[in-house]
Amino acid sequence: TRHYAITLLPGDGIGPEVVSVAKKVLQRAGSVEGIHFDFQEMPMGGAALDLTGVPLPKETLEAARSSDAVLLGAIGGYKWDKNEKHVKPETGLLQLREGLKVFANLRPASVLPQLVDASTLKKEVAEGVDLMVVRELTGGIYFGKPRGFSTNDNGEEIGFNTEVYASHEIDRIARVAFETARKRRGKLCSVDKANVLEASMLWRRRVTEIALEYPDIELTHMYVDNASMQLVRFPKQFDVIVTNNIFGDILSDEASMITGSIGMLPSASLGENGPGLFEPIHGSAPDIAGQDKANPLATILSAAMLLKYGLGEQDAAERIETAVLNTLDRGFRTGDIYSDGNIMVGCTEMGEQVLRAV
Amino acid sequence: TRHYAITLLPGDGIGPEVVSVAKKVLQRAGSVEGIHFDFQEMPMGGAALDLTGVPLPKETLEAARSSDAVLLGAIGGYKWDKNEKHVKPETGLLQLREGLKVFANLRPASVLPQLVDASTLKKEVAEGVDLMVVRELTGGIYFGKPRGFSTNDNGEEIGFNTEVYASHEIDRIARVAFETARKRRGKLCSVDKANVLEASMLWRRRVTEIALEYPDIELTHMYVDNASMQLVRFPKQFDVIVTNNIFGDILSDEASMITGSIGMLPSASLGENGPGLFEPIHGSAPDIAGQDKANPLATILSAAMLLKYGLGEQDAAERIETAVLNTLDRGFRTGDIYSDGNIMVGCTEMGEQVLRAV
Ligand SMILES: CC(C)[C@H](C(=O)O)[C@@H](O)C(=O)O
Ligand SMILES: CC(C)[C@H](C(=O)O)[C@@H](O)C(=O)O
Repeated sequence: TRHYAITLLPGDGIGPEVVSVAKKVLQRAGSVEGIHFDFQEMPMGGAALDLTGVPLPKETLEAARSSDAVLLGAIGGYKWDKNEKHVKPETGLLQLREGLKVFANLRPASVLPQLVDASTLKKEVAEGVDLMVVRELTGGIYFGKPRGFSTNDNGEEIGFNTEVYASHEIDRIARVAFETARKRRGKLCSVDKANVLEASMLWRRRVTEIALEYPDIELTHMYVDNASMQLVRFPKQFDVIVTNNIFGDILSDEASMITGSIGMLPSASLGENGPGLFEPIHGSAPDIAGQDKANPLATILSAAMLLKYGLGEQDAAERIETAVLNTLDRGFRTGDIYSDGNIMVGCTEMGEQVLRAV
Repeated sequence: TRHYAITLLPGDGIGPEVVSVAKKVLQRAGSVEGIHFDFQEMPMGGAALDLTGVPLPKETLEAARSSDAVLLGAIGGYKWDKNEKHVKPETGLLQLREGLKVFANLRPASVLPQLVDASTLKKEVAEGVDLMVVRELTGGIYFGKPRGFSTNDNGEEIGFNTEVYASHEIDRIARVAFETARKRRGKLCSVDKANVLEASMLWRRRVTEIALEYPDIELTHMYVDNASMQLVRFPKQFDVIVTNNIFGDILSDEASMITGSIGMLPSASLGENGPGLFEPIHGSAPDIAGQDKANPLATILSAAMLLKYGLGEQDAAERIETAVLNTLDRGFRTGDIYSDGNIMVGCTEMGEQVLRAV
């Protein structure tokens, strides 16, 4: 048997419920495939704030760093919404991404045939959508300096941030995107605002340069405003989208909503080496926390991405993915994806049904 | 009769066709309502580049500045796509906005009952959408300094831009948004990324402060990633959205695509005083330029906004709006909004039909 150390970061809101279900699914898939997991649960986000006063305690980052992969639930909630920046749950997440150096955020958005009705898009537009947003995650305006508040020449307050990319940051995310496209349908669309921003001009120049290493991939460029339209107009045109941190934040959320089932969507954040960070793209949903209503499938599918991208355990990953599809085929649905004729279940029961299918 | 000086900037691609139609509609509406227009046509964008080597000649800006309102067609095209920044058509547009100090960009997106099928969203989601994006247009990352290219400590190239807002820039766009909401359904949603960016934290703080002057308006705040989802999930929740330059660029295009008929959507850019700039939100569509296929309605409706917001000529504005609806009711459609059972017409013929109805 192979052994892996997994750090679990349940976080806030529905985080603990969905992580606890995903953990069981990982254990079951592991036992079938001859994998043993050592789980270590650590506080993070609002939960860590309440416990220790900081959103990412040193011990949590250390545990995450020294493990083979990290599974995160969700962070944040009304309670901490007015906190100052250094004590916001979100700041802990940014510190975790920076601390793990996970610069490549992979966010698949596909419309499953079983759930095509969940999309607000017309069936013929939604059906068959299967795209992946590759978002740069540790650079750009999220981390750029200088940043802060100051006073201008008129004595007024100003707030400022810096959007900045260095060549190597663009090159490495571009390579991840080209490699991802190679394993999919061979199409990459790079999204920027190169008609206005210098940071985007360099982005476009570097991506075009790296493309020479991937003559088999069809590269196109699109302005971010147009991309946000095209995702609504004709999302099937996209295979892989690569973009910067802030545009990726906006477009990946738009893409996921197009599927109509964000309770289903996982994500992977990867670095050069070191453990990857895996998390559902949905938030902590404080309004339904603790009510056994959350959809655990996004976290279960994040566990599958953990196996595939984090540990190279392809078979175990596919076992989980197949179990999820099978559970949907048997008609089980949580409230967020429920439609007439299906069987409504809660978070725990959905987990049980996936476990049976693993 | 009232007299107004109007600068026409036909620009590139389909720009000249749609502006020429809108000019006739303005003339006709003016003659009915006792308004006389003096039109002056000036080069701008790629057309100006070819003629003079710069995208916004000094004479064009001067003419625009000294007129009562400016009507722009569209700018840009493949021909100039690889141009360096200072000789890009887009740069001319940014210089025009800056030169006219039009900091408030109003972009309505409504789904007309006649065109609800044009949306890629399900009928029940699209039907009744009627929102207005108020985008800050002369600040933020579009204009912030420092910007450019440089070399970092590792000797690598970097590209950088500055997102910066001063209090008064936020205050004045917030006031425009609150006033706009007051004339509509009294709801304002301010969109930012205040969980990460200092520029957004100041934005949220100032908007919240200005809200005290508008106790009758219901103000909410939303993160930009969530806003891009909510526009797809449930666009009817929005009345007025106010946001910064770059988020406004992305979200207003998304919102307009949700209507499914961007060939229909006008925009107004307004300053404190001085002439406003009015333009369709669609681009120059070089692929159909000169073929009499373009939809002139967005430019005609921009002319209506010019009358309403630029000149205070409410009656003439409504006359044009009514004429457009009437023309749609009579079944006339250009190719972009055509559906079975309607009458397909070109740009000129659509213009004639609107003229008849004015
Ligand atoms: C919580 C927030 C800081 C975060 C981000 O903006 O990256 C989230 O929106 C995401 O996309 O993971
Ligand atoms: C052409 C471009 C510079 C412009 C912008 O980004 O503002 C356009 O996309 C718009 O929205 O008017």
